Amino acid sequence: MAKEFNLDEKLTAYTLAVGDMDLCILRLMNDRQFPWLIMVPRLMGVRELYELSRGDRSLLMEEITQVSEALEGVTGCDKLNVGALGNQVAQLHVHVVARFENDAVWPSPVWGAGGAVAYEEKQARVLVDDIARALSIQPRLNVV
Amino acid sequence: MAKEFNLDEKLTAYTLAVGDMDLCILRLMNDRQFPWLIMVPRLMGVRELYELSRGDRSLLMEEITQVSEALEGVTGCDKLNVGALGNQVAQLHVHVVARFENDAVWPSPVWGAGGAVAYEEKQARVLVDDIARALSIQPRLNVV
Repeated sequence: MAKEFNLDEKLTAYTLAVGDMDLCILRLMNDRQFPWLIMVPRLMGVRELYELSRGDRSLLMEEITQVSEALEGVTGCDKLNVGALGNQVAQLHVHVVARFENDAVWPSPVWGAGGAVAYEEKQARVLVDDIARALSIQPRLNVV
Repeated sequence: MAKEFNLDEKLTAYTLAVGDMDLCILRLMNDRQFPWLIMVPRLMGVRELYELSRGDRSLLMEEITQVSEALEGVTGCDKLNVGALGNQVAQLHVHVVARFENDAVWPSPVWGAGGAVAYEEKQARVLVDDIARALSIQPRLNVV
């Protein structure tokens, strides 16, 4: 039997649930400075992209595409930043961040840019619902 | 006739040629602090991953995988950082960076981390040759 998937503790603490895609669970970084999604393939023990099977890599790329288009559509951002770093959290996760030319740290990256500013519950709920609707996935009920 | 591919001026200035893959040209960031490769799909006018065709996205993911494994094999790094940002250079490009737990900015990202330290020509040539060999691609003759 496959090992049960568990989301890393830090990722759980810093993010809010959005919903499930075929390969990845989708979470919203709890930082209202940047509309910032985290995609985590539901596989245990994977750190690097190359450790995924070829089929899962291709599926991940398609899910990144869907998430990117949904996030741009919902936010009207100027640029998307996509990254798989994993220096702080080993569990493979992909960041998809909506960037604006007038955001707090443009044109620097959001990673390592300092403290997060948590969403108000209602604000998070609206954003999660909008993103889930754009992706045609079921939003999680308890986002905060 | 397809528009001729031109590498962005900043990317040209800050990087050294490694070689050509099927989709991407491969360049080495001229910063000896971090073994840092830049992959640029040979397509004009593309800013975001989602603008690539599905076939090209899948091919890009496979080339990212090959480059990641080659870079890890050559450097023995602790972690790979993969990212497509484009806040400073619009032309779509993917960073694949070899990170070490004792490198200059670990665990922060290398993007926005300050000034580059150029390679000595011989040092760059050895690294370019090693990476090209690991990828079974022809190294460019004039790397600096």
